[in-house]
Amino acid sequence: MSGFDAWVNAIAARTETALDHYLPPADTVPARLHEAMRYAALGGGKRVRPLLVHAAGAVSGATPAALDAAAAAVEMIHAYSLVHDDMPCMDDDDLRRGRPTVHKAYDEATALLVGDALQTQAFEVLAGGDGGTDLAAGVRLALVVELAQASGSQGMAGGQAIDLQSVGLALSREALETMHRKKTGALLRASVRMGGLCGNLSGDARGLLDRYAQAMGLAFQVVDDILDVTADTATLGKTAGKDAAHDKPTYVSLLGLDEARALAGRLRDEAHAALDALAGSGDGGLRLRQLADLIVLRTH
Amino acid sequence: MSGFDAWVNAIAARTETALDHYLPPADTVPARLHEAMRYAALGGGKRVRPLLVHAAGAVSGATPAALDAAAAAVEMIHAYSLVHDDMPCMDDDDLRRGRPTVHKAYDEATALLVGDALQTQAFEVLAGGDGGTDLAAGVRLALVVELAQASGSQGMAGGQAIDLQSVGLALSREALETMHRKKTGALLRASVRMGGLCGNLSGDARGLLDRYAQAMGLAFQVVDDILDVTADTATLGKTAGKDAAHDKPTYVSLLGLDEARALAGRLRDEAHAALDALAGSGDGGLRLRQLADLIVLRTH
Repeated sequence: MSGFDAWVNAIAARTETALDHYLPPADTVPARLHEAMRYAALGGGKRVRPLLVHAAGAVSGATPAALDAAAAAVEMIHAYSLVHDDMPCMDDDDLRRGRPTVHKAYDEATALLVGDALQTQAFEVLAGGDGGTDLAAGVRLALVVELAQASGSQGMAGGQAIDLQSVGLALSREALETMHRKKTGALLRASVRMGGLCGNLSGDARGLLDRYAQAMGLAFQVVDDILDVTADTATLGKTAGKDAAHDKPTYVSLLGLDEARALAGRLRDEAHAALDALAGSGDGGLRLRQLADLIVLRTH
Repeated sequence: MSGFDAWVNAIAARTETALDHYLPPADTVPARLHEAMRYAALGGGKRVRPLLVHAAGAVSGATPAALDAAAAAVEMIHAYSLVHDDMPCMDDDDLRRGRPTVHKAYDEATALLVGDALQTQAFEVLAGGDGGTDLAAGVRLALVVELAQASGSQGMAGGQAIDLQSVGLALSREALETMHRKKTGALLRASVRMGGLCGNLSGDARGLLDRYAQAMGLAFQVVDDILDVTADTATLGKTAGKDAAHDKPTYVSLLGLDEARALAGRLRDEAHAALDALAGSGDGGLRLRQLADLIVLRTH
């Protein structure tokens, strides 16, 4: 196993431990809700956002222990968004991470509440509701603001709203980019920024990390659009081909497959260039570079 | 107009102004989402929670200006919960505050996102995402924790989950009380506690305020159950009689109308007693007493 693979496994494992710690036990009243919250958040997913938090956090000199809360919180927000996006009134999907979606495994009302409560839990974790005091109050507040802005009506939820309105429309490339910068880019970018907030960074380093984060946020979605066309459902762990089935504008429908692939490559180059300019970023910088490769070259 | 009525109108007006300030303008992209968020949060409601924030805040010596963020945040959480509770997979209600519910006025997917984004906005407001610096970082963090615990899986969302599971069941009085302490009581109690957090209170005063808040949190729900039976839809601004129609256990179904009314009266006495013990609470104490009367004696 490469050093990178071992690091990915280690961060995924400690994120699982952190989520398990920060989510109420499954037998807490109401048990069905807590069981479903754990079903949605534990035991699956590529943990891309926690990996970004930890790699960017390493660049900023934060210890892994100081990053666990931010990593768990951003993953809870991601999990909540998947649960709600999969509901019948949104994408109406039965399969997620190779398992039935929450509204199929439980019911729609539970899925609604699971998403709601996972969001709440994310902010409680960042604010230190469990009494953890590793991070200064000012840092915790900045983390809450960062995560809220990335996931709210001008971030992830806003991108989702634009996505809904765009079904069947021929979007311009600019409009498609605006949608994706909000829908998936904002939370990925926030993951990098939150890692940086947990340690210390110069203004220049912050700017370069953000350049990296913006390129990766967009690359992630371009690759998602490509995989929706090229991969099969078993490999993806979610329904393949649903963008075309729902007549959704994507990078592939707009640019064609070859140009979409070229765009993903250029965004990876841009991310690498930002890291090159970030002198002395050490192990964290190496991990961010490898994550850029992972995001662009992934097959699911 | 009595001094109390003038105060209620003044707090409702300043809460409307604060919500208008803290919600993105209706033409912010995506405009449909922001318009719907404003539809859900502005121009309606009794503003009971902001009134509790401001009255308890006055007891703690906080200025009205220092309380606006907390009042707006708790009202955004309340508004989000109404939007989601009204959705077809939950209570499936067409009418709220005398107007079509969000999923009727817009659509289900928009209602889902409106609730999600209102929740996010509440935490951003508390964390000072707009750059407001009136409150110390430690106070803001405590407000985030308080609101998150009151509204999450062991608070409001948890109570809603218990409510869903209880349809058609004969709950014990203890189980009914547990449900309501979470479903509506927790956020009302948090309103009082958050007002207190914005100023300064002795431990004793905090305990007495909390006794008041717990009594009022429960009284509010008992009266809601009574009104569902005794008031008509036009007066309520929401569909009357829906508890019985949905075969939901309520204080009225459990205790009968007379005993439910007697219970509401006893809870009001308990709230008054807590305030009597809270010496020197000044105008804030008077307002809390009048709010207890308003909550118990209201007709809608």
